[in-house]
Amino acid sequence: MINKLIKNIRKTNAPIVVGLDPMLSFIPAHIIKKSFQDFGETLEGAADAIWHFNKEIIDATYDLIPAVKPQIAMYEQFGLEGLKVFKKTVDYCKEKDLIVVGDIKRGDIGSTSTAYAVGHLGTVTVGHNKYKPFDEDFITLNPYLGTDGIKPFITIGKEENKGMFILVKTSNPSSGEFQDQYVGRKPLYELVGEQVNEWSKLHMGDGYSYIGAVVGATYPEVGKVLRKVMPKSFILVPGYGAQGGKGIDLVHFFNPDGLGAVVNSSRGIIAAYKQEKYSHVPAKNFADASRLAVLDMIEDINSALISL
Amino acid sequence: MINKLIKNIRKTNAPIVVGLDPMLSFIPAHIIKKSFQDFGETLEGAADAIWHFNKEIIDATYDLIPAVKPQIAMYEQFGLEGLKVFKKTVDYCKEKDLIVVGDIKRGDIGSTSTAYAVGHLGTVTVGHNKYKPFDEDFITLNPYLGTDGIKPFITIGKEENKGMFILVKTSNPSSGEFQDQYVGRKPLYELVGEQVNEWSKLHMGDGYSYIGAVVGATYPEVGKVLRKVMPKSFILVPGYGAQGGKGIDLVHFFNPDGLGAVVNSSRGIIAAYKQEKYSHVPAKNFADASRLAVLDMIEDINSALISL
Repeated sequence: MINKLIKNIRKTNAPIVVGLDPMLSFIPAHIIKKSFQDFGETLEGAADAIWHFNKEIIDATYDLIPAVKPQIAMYEQFGLEGLKVFKKTVDYCKEKDLIVVGDIKRGDIGSTSTAYAVGHLGTVTVGHNKYKPFDEDFITLNPYLGTDGIKPFITIGKEENKGMFILVKTSNPSSGEFQDQYVGRKPLYELVGEQVNEWSKLHMGDGYSYIGAVVGATYPEVGKVLRKVMPKSFILVPGYGAQGGKGIDLVHFFNPDGLGAVVNSSRGIIAAYKQEKYSHVPAKNFADASRLAVLDMIEDINSALISL
Repeated sequence: MINKLIKNIRKTNAPIVVGLDPMLSFIPAHIIKKSFQDFGETLEGAADAIWHFNKEIIDATYDLIPAVKPQIAMYEQFGLEGLKVFKKTVDYCKEKDLIVVGDIKRGDIGSTSTAYAVGHLGTVTVGHNKYKPFDEDFITLNPYLGTDGIKPFITIGKEENKGMFILVKTSNPSSGEFQDQYVGRKPLYELVGEQVNEWSKLHMGDGYSYIGAVVGATYPEVGKVLRKVMPKSFILVPGYGAQGGKGIDLVHFFNPDGLGAVVNSSRGIIAAYKQEKYSHVPAKNFADASRLAVLDMIEDINSALISL
């Protein structure tokens, strides 16, 4: 899947990921109205609205982008009905030949990590049958429990030809509270980055590893350091757009080959029609605004990357 | 809920939690057979077997115990059908007046943490209606993202009168890889413990906080230190039994009032019928073995606590 991610990035010339993190407040009134008519003001109604919102955005952008990143929390908040639509979204994006990064930030002790790995990347056996419950291509993971919490994901990733992005330095304001603490002469995030680099060797693709890292766009200097610490890991970069990161800040997340990073934008794309900049697009055509925002994002990043 | 947890502990005289972490390999053949007859060798069949397994164990132990801790990964690995049974198990345990700790180890940036908090502790609004998607009493959380990843859970915990246990020092062998690293003069877990103590003040019950911590039974010396660092936080202690912890190791996780900790056992209880010790119990009556194992665990812990 890392090879396919790179292939998709080359095909689209767009090192970006669209974060499918729907909130009901992002969804235009006409979609909400129709779903509530069909299913009532219920969890099923909310989930149906999310599905139609996602589908229009995917249909309007899939030819421009290599990958999507649905944030499972946004679905989990609607319980089982929400999770049904998470799965439906994963499947639909895969039909469109997009790489799907399940933003699930799981992580636990060994046997429990195995269960998460089976559920999200792998295959579960029931009697004589095998099933792939959520079947994302990549997932995000939390490293706080150390190697034996991560290894089961690598084991199943190898079996299934799938990958993962491990949190190293997150984009949020308080990420430094623990991640920036100095451990000897280096911050904790660097130690975690070194460990990601070790893990990355366990599951290599052609040029890059299936084991990547998450480093927030909001900390460009940290990105510069971590790029060198983990040369074979793709960096998934959240925090572009709504959280404040700009294309110019992202140059050092990439390697000189122009690869090595994928930049995520969520509300900046999916709720683009609510921005001043795209206010000429009527809410009815919200997905057209998402397409324009994708084109603008690609332009912003690629023009910054020219300096590489 | 922290007050109710304490009330339940006093009523049962049992500072324990039963971990409802079913694996198909734990479930006796007669249950599997029946579920496969009814639903085939499908995810639904697996989920049905888990449900009947859980139900018998709950029915056989609920009068002895204050709380249960279903590990969501064990359900998530069977996809939506598994998660349906997670929810059914949560609801059934609450009917039995048990406190339910959802072992979900979530944690993300602000708005995403809010979505998880809504899904697991809170209330989601759809049009004019309100729903409580998973509705556990407590959940477990991962602190790696710092305060702004935890605060949304506290906010919703306050609204809903619910609580959380935050990972401080986990029970697994490699937990020290990051958690034991020295930050200045103290290990990272102690810094996280100090932060849990700060957070604990934001949501207090009568004597203890709604904000607790997870500290593994496998590290008793660490438990002794952290007990003092977080005096008002309940400690959820995994790692008893199958992972190697014994009653005598756990004394210092408690305060002199005999409260302040709840010890979890999962496979030691739910798969007790597979142990040599309970091999006189036929598989058909597996839940009786679970009841005996609960009684033995209570005896082991209480006899150690006499020394307090």
